[in-house]
Parts: sequence; structure tokens; C-alpha cells
Amino acid sequence: MSAESNSAVCSLPLAPAGDAPQLRVHRMGIDTYQEAVIFLRRDCHVCQSEGFAAQSRIALWHGKTRVIATLNVVDAPLLAIDQAGLSEAAWRALGADEDALITVQHPAPIHSFSLVRGKIFGQSLDDNGVQEIICDIVAGNYSDIEIACFIAAVAGRRTSAHEAIALTRAMVTVGQHLHWPAEIIVDKHCVGGLPGNRTTLIVVPILAACGLTIPKTSSRAITSPAGTADTMETLAPVTLNSEQMQQVVAQEGGCIVWGGAVSLSPADDILIRVERPLGLDSDVQLVASVLSKKIAAGSTHVLIDIPVGPSAKVRTQEAARDLTDLLQAVANAMGLQLRVVQSDGSGPVGRGIGPALEAYDVLRVLQNEAQAPQDLRQRALRLAADLLEMGQKAEPGQGWAMAEQCLASGAAWRKFQAICAAQGGMRVPPVAPYRQALFVARPGKVVAVDNRRLARIAKLAGAPQAPSAGLEFLSPIGSMVQAGQPWLVIHAESVGQLQYALTYAQEQTDLLSVGDVA
Amino acid sequence: MSAESNSAVCSLPLAPAGDAPQLRVHRMGIDTYQEAVIFLRRDCHVCQSEGFAAQSRIALWHGKTRVIATLNVVDAPLLAIDQAGLSEAAWRALGADEDALITVQHPAPIHSFSLVRGKIFGQSLDDNGVQEIICDIVAGNYSDIEIACFIAAVAGRRTSAHEAIALTRAMVTVGQHLHWPAEIIVDKHCVGGLPGNRTTLIVVPILAACGLTIPKTSSRAITSPAGTADTMETLAPVTLNSEQMQQVVAQEGGCIVWGGAVSLSPADDILIRVERPLGLDSDVQLVASVLSKKIAAGSTHVLIDIPVGPSAKVRTQEAARDLTDLLQAVANAMGLQLRVVQSDGSGPVGRGIGPALEAYDVLRVLQNEAQAPQDLRQRALRLAADLLEMGQKAEPGQGWAMAEQCLASGAAWRKFQAICAAQGGMRVPPVAPYRQALFVARPGKVVAVDNRRLARIAKLAGAPQAPSAGLEFLSPIGSMVQAGQPWLVIHAESVGQLQYALTYAQEQTDLLSVGDVA
Repeated sequence: MSAESNSAVCSLPLAPAGDAPQLRVHRMGIDTYQEAVIFLRRDCHVCQSEGFAAQSRIALWHGKTRVIATLNVVDAPLLAIDQAGLSEAAWRALGADEDALITVQHPAPIHSFSLVRGKIFGQSLDDNGVQEIICDIVAGNYSDIEIACFIAAVAGRRTSAHEAIALTRAMVTVGQHLHWPAEIIVDKHCVGGLPGNRTTLIVVPILAACGLTIPKTSSRAITSPAGTADTMETLAPVTLNSEQMQQVVAQEGGCIVWGGAVSLSPADDILIRVERPLGLDSDVQLVASVLSKKIAAGSTHVLIDIPVGPSAKVRTQEAARDLTDLLQAVANAMGLQLRVVQSDGSGPVGRGIGPALEAYDVLRVLQNEAQAPQDLRQRALRLAADLLEMGQKAEPGQGWAMAEQCLASGAAWRKFQAICAAQGGMRVPPVAPYRQALFVARPGKVVAVDNRRLARIAKLAGAPQAPSAGLEFLSPIGSMVQAGQPWLVIHAESVGQLQYALTYAQEQTDLLSVGDVA
Repeated sequence: MSAESNSAVCSLPLAPAGDAPQLRVHRMGIDTYQEAVIFLRRDCHVCQSEGFAAQSRIALWHGKTRVIATLNVVDAPLLAIDQAGLSEAAWRALGADEDALITVQHPAPIHSFSLVRGKIFGQSLDDNGVQEIICDIVAGNYSDIEIACFIAAVAGRRTSAHEAIALTRAMVTVGQHLHWPAEIIVDKHCVGGLPGNRTTLIVVPILAACGLTIPKTSSRAITSPAGTADTMETLAPVTLNSEQMQQVVAQEGGCIVWGGAVSLSPADDILIRVERPLGLDSDVQLVASVLSKKIAAGSTHVLIDIPVGPSAKVRTQEAARDLTDLLQAVANAMGLQLRVVQSDGSGPVGRGIGPALEAYDVLRVLQNEAQAPQDLRQRALRLAADLLEMGQKAEPGQGWAMAEQCLASGAAWRKFQAICAAQGGMRVPPVAPYRQALFVARPGKVVAVDNRRLARIAKLAGAPQAPSAGLEFLSPIGSMVQAGQPWLVIHAESVGQLQYALTYAQEQTDLLSVGDVA
């Protein structure tokens, strides 16, 4: 296997002018998350000569490395007059030593943002335009508010399948592209919105144990309390680069790593950073995000699971059909074999919601425990069965038996442990120090639960940043409950977050719908 | 006259919980423009107990004042472990003394942003929804990327006249509302996009000298090299509060002040801060911005000038009609008398582009100098004539003669000086220390010039932040030019900016179109 970078499709920035002003670089020790920020003294000569003011976008150069940062203006004594302070993100990106000389100047005007403006006003984006935008975003030329506009511009229904194909292709071309010795490379993806639906951690070891190659990259949560990468991280390291990932796959046939570290879709990593606080993920963005990563990872056969339910991410059959059509259109254009399955999205899967709590559900299934959540087990087997057939390891109709045999025999569990070891060593997921239960108000049969508000409570409790935070959901849809019985337990790593989640949860009187027993 | 605040329409934030954590406040001396930023130590107890991480949104309380800020996480020695550092914007907004105790906590989830998401996905906003969004924006509850999404969401053509009316009304209700003793209050507005079109500074003194009341508030530049407030500021203070503004109008009948300081439309001031770097101003935003300020200022009769030309803001007759229809629809709904005039938008007005350079053009007209730009004079007289008739000071058809007499007699110039004095004292506009000319390549007759790229050059030269920066445009459309003759002079306050503007200008070979002489 090998990795190649296609980033030559984007034109490289020009070197700075020979007489551009220079400053001594200083690491400020200020963490602005991933937005690059430069701090300059209000009275520094560069601010005067270049006319920089607070919020100006500034191009910084160190050798051939360029970073575009947003200016914060500071007063003495935070900086000397010839110093340029850098936020952690800018410091990492520039890679200069303390006191190294850097060059600062105005960045060239960004032509591609005029295309984003045009899209907002109803024009279409062509292939070149989309490529230009994605190149600028990956080069760090867009500020966060410009990225937010791009996300809003392509989120609406006016974005065509053609634009979605162009976006997917552009996102593939700016990242790495992995190649593998096997002809068939399988992968799976769940569209999400269903708390606790952590099938990947069961499907991957089944398939790998059965001899398929599945180099799985997963994302961290966007709008949910846990992404697959967040859950896996409580069990093993997931921040592997592409060489390390390829070594794990060569050895074990599969892996479950964080896609952001592999940089298969660096554009998507940047878009997600802005989408996450906005809670804004659209069909187009979703399809481009998912398929660009599958294609970059070298996948040939991909299974997509779309849970449908009134409070899942996809709420109606019509929405599921629209999404399926878009997935198929983009997959066809990109030469990818794609199968879409719909699943029941009415309630959470398993009992845990949040990284560590979901990991414990996965462990119970892999270890064939009697109290393992059967819904999670069944869902994982169904997906594994389909992929065994798509990947030509099982005859049509024989996939389920092969998958179940692999799981029941302990082969999948041994493979999972081997994958964790290869990724850097298996871990015991953390347990939250603070907990509080919610109690059933009236007896009866559970008829519905609001997934979206459950997800919000788990996030208020700290998930996924706090890995042990989240929820235990003790009353599956269809189960009988008694008044006063605990139906939900909130887990948190801090008192403040427990209280915050609890206050919100207690205001939601119709979170759990209990019906009379017939 | 009197001012009343309608901000009661927005619900007040609840006080913090009694046991919320407290920190000592510290002014960091970091200018992040207008976005409020809080700096906390990575290891501080509040970060731990509340689960705050970089880019978290945090509610800060000092007494009953609340500010929502974005978190930057810092390491020692920038802060002590019990300190909360504030950016300049957060410091001003909170108004606490150094070392005062402040309370920090999670802000309540913002319900109204789900309406913005809905709008992006094609749903309509109703009156209450728009009001809720605007209240949250004015309360500082939206981050900059959320504001950027709102701007993008309402910018497109799918936003209806009904939504534009709701937006205008919401923007009026969150600001002050001025009342005047006169029954007729006139106002004017130019849609912009035409460099140098600074008629307001001539129209206001004419009307005030003729006995009309015109409490003119103007904006600073959004996407242009100078707004009227930027130009006026080179001649007199414009940052007056509403009491000071009302005193000037009581004394002189008119004023030309910066609308942002009067806070007639605080929502618009915030939206413009994000629109400006995005260069994204739509019909809906424009109409709501302009009319909300006119209504809040107590205007009853408003004249809107729309210059139309291939490189003006409004490029076609069709676009001008759409904008006129929207202006009329909103004005009708709000009970405002509105007249729209179209004017020639093919080239810059006057010779100067940039705050001080435009001010010098205005002075030449007011002082009836022989070399005064006649196009600026004619445009101002036409608008003044219409407003004298709308305001019932002149019979229909008699406005022009009255306006011209007022200007030619020196009455307008004396009134302008009196207004400047009343606003805090007349100033001499600054003159730029660095200049460079561009020269005509071939002889002939000037047939076209690209306003948009002229504006960009002026901005690259530093306008409007650098008040003396900008352009002198020496070759009006229709004039004869010789090869080697200077046709444009770039003015800058720094060598870097002069070079930056010049480099861009020299790359634009078709900026000035010169045709053969017939």
C-alpha cells in the first residue's frame, strides 16, 4: 500500500516580497482552538507601515511555510515592539522556533470568496469554482466567518447533485489518497443521529477476522454526544498518521482511527470545526464529507446505514430517499460501489450515550455477555452480513451466519483486541465521578423518546470532550416501567456540568413518552 | 424632542445561579475588535468544574450586566489561576474595575439559532422568529460565525418582502426611537456603490438652511472606501450620542452624525461588523438597515437615490426595480413616505475617493469654487430639490431654484459651518504623505471606468481606516486624455499600503477604457 498527496492541484502561494517587514516570533501560550491568531503591538512599525488593524487577516511566512492569521492588537507589556505573538494553532502551523524571524504582509485578495457570494445569491458553482474554494479553505485563506458563509451557502436545497459531486471530488483532491494491495476494500458509514449506535467497533473486527480489508477512519462528533472516533479513543489510541494506519491494516486487516489525523480529507476537518458549533450539517456536506473520506481511503465497496425516525437525523422516508439518491449519484460519478440500508431510528441503540458509556456497550457485545444490548448486536450483524456479501467473502444469503459465527466464537473479540494493541495498546474506558438519575413519573409502556433532546442532555453533561460523560438510557422503547423507577442516569466529570444537564433535563417534561398498558 | 428605548421587547437575561463560580477580572490589553473574548487559565478551577474548552461561549456577569464571550485558554504566566482576562470589547461591555469579582457560567442554549438553520434549509421566518433572532444578536448571544450564517441565510432571493418587513420592524424595536417637534422630518439615503458620491454633506445644509428638519445619521463604509460618516469625520466630530445629536438639530435644523454612536439600530451595527469583512450586503439587509434607521430617527419623508451602472452596486434597471419594490413595500408597511430616484451610476462622482479626498470635493462645492466638481453639485441640487418639494417647503417644480439659490448665496456653506461647529468644531481634512500616479497608456476619449476595482484600490491604499488615503480620479467619463497624462493618483498614509494598492492597480490593465476619437 502507499499514500500519495494530490495537493499539487492547488496552486502554491507566492513567496513574500523581498522587502516585507520582519518580526521576532513569540509563542503566546493562548489557545484559540484551531483558528490562527497573531498578536502585534498597537504601536509596532509593521502595524503602522502596513496599516494593520484588529481583525485584519495577515499572511505570515517562515521560510516557505505560510500561515494566514487574524490580528489581535495588544498593548505593552504583553509583547515587545518587534515581536509577533502566535496563538497555539498559528504556532503549530508555522513551525518556527522562539525568536525566529518571520515575515508578515497583506494576504492576496481571495478571489474564490466572490464565488461563495454568488452562490448565496442563487448562482451555481462549477467544478473549477468549487476546487478553487476548497483549495483556499485548505490553505487557511478563509476566516471562520467566511467558512461559515460557505457552509450556509451550500447547505440549502438549491445545491445540485452536480455541485455535490464537484465538492466531493475537490475534497478528495486536496488530501492524501491511500492505495492497498487488495482489490476489494470495504467500508461502512452510519449517517448518525441515533445515540449509542456504535456498530463500527463490532463490524470492523468481524470483517477483518473474516479476511476482508477495512481501513476504517471515523470522525469525532459533529453535533452528537460521541463520534465513533471519540468512543474508540476510550479503548485505544485513534490519532494515527497514515503510515501508522497502514501498518495496522497490513497487520490486522482493519483499523478504527480518527480520520482527522490521517488527513484524508483536510478540507472536511476544517469545515467540521466550524459546522460543529453551528450544528449545521446538510445532505450535501454530509455526502461530500463521507464519500470523500471513503474514496481517499481507497475504498471500493461502501455500505451506508441510514437510521430513520422522528427524532433521528433523518426523520422521514422522503428525506432518506433524497439522501440515498444524492449518495448514489455522487458514488456513481466517483466510481464507487455503494449500498444504502435503512434502519429503525426511533430510539437510542444500546444503553450508553457518550464515548465511554458506548464503549462499555460494545465490549459487552464483543465479549458475548448475557446482558449485552441485543439491539446493538443485531444491527452490527446485519451490516457485517451485507458487507461480507458485498466483499465476496460470503455467498448471497450466507453473510449473517458467517458474521454471527465470527462474533459468537470470540474471533471478533480477539481481532478487536489485536487491532487495539496494534493501534498503540488497549485501554479501560473511564467512569464518571458524578451521576444523577431521572425517575419515571407514571407507570406504563415506553412508546417514544426524543433522541435529539437526549443528545443535548449528554452534550450538556460534557460529552464528547469529557469522555466518561453522557447518559445511561435504561428504558428502551417497548419496555414496561414503574413510577419512581430510574429511566435515565446522567454521568458527568464535573459538578457544574452535571447540574447544567440536570437543570435542562428536568425542564423537559415530555422527554419520555409512557403509554397506558393495553 | 425625546428619545425612548423599546428594548423591553426583548426578554432580559436571567441572573446567574447563586452558586456560580467567581473569578477576579483583569484587563488583558488585547484588542479583538468588537468580539468579546475571555481568557482563562487552562488549569483554572472553573474550566475544570464547568467543562469549558477553547472556543466555548461563556456568560460573564458583573452585577446585573451580562456579556457573552468566546473563551481563549491560556497558560501561565499570562494569568493567575483565579483570574479572568478580558479583551478590550469584553472589558468595555462589562464595565467592571480591575480585580472586581465576576461570575462565569454556561449561557443558556440559543433557541433562535434553530430558526436560522431552518431558514438556511428553506423555511420562512415569521415575525416572532425574526424578533427573537434580532433580540439575541443585540444581546450578544450570537458568535460571529452564527451572525455570518444569519447574514448568508437572509441574503438570498428566497427572503420575502414579508420577512424584510419583519426584519426592519425588529431592528427598529431593539433600538432607540427619536421624536421631534416638527411634523415633517425629511431624510435621504444613497444606495452607494458610486465612489465619491458624497451629496449628503451638501443636501443637509441646503435643507436645514431652508427650514426643514433633517436629523441625518450616516453609516461608516461597509464595502466601500468611505461612508458618509467617514467623510464627515474628517470635517467634524460625528460620534455624538442621541442627546448631543438632538441638541445640534434643535439648534441648526440638521446634523450629519454616525448612526452607530446614536445606537438607532444597534442590531444593524452588529450585522455590519460581520458583513463588512464578508463584503456581503443584500437587498433585504440593505432595506432593513436603511429604513430601520430612518424610522428610528423619526423620519416621515425619505428620498432614496439609486445610482445604476455596470459597476455600481445596482447594475441593471431590473435590479433597481426589485430594490425599489422592496423599499416601497417595507416603507408602506411601516407608514413611511418614500420616493426613489435613479441616477447615473457609470462613473465616480467628483474627483476624490476616500474620506478626506471626498471632503475636499464637498468643500469646493459648498464654497462655490470655480473648479468644484459639477457632477457632485448637480446631483446634490437634484436631491435637495426633490426633498424641498416632498417636505412642502417648495411648490412642485420650484425646488431646484430654491436649492440653487441657497447654495449659490453661501447660505448652505454658512449652515454647514454652523452644523460642524455644533457637532464639536470644524476640522481641516488630512492630506496623505505618500502618493503615486498612474498614467494614460493611449490617447482618446474615456468611455468607461470600473468603479468596483477603483474602490478596491482605494481600500488597499488604506481607506477608510486611513482617512487621507484614497484616489484622485482625474479623467471623468467623456473627457479627452493624452498618453502619459496622469489619470489616477493613489494617496496612502504608509509606504506598505501605497505599494500594495499600486501593485494591484498595475495588474488591472483594463481599469480605464479609452476609445478612439470619432
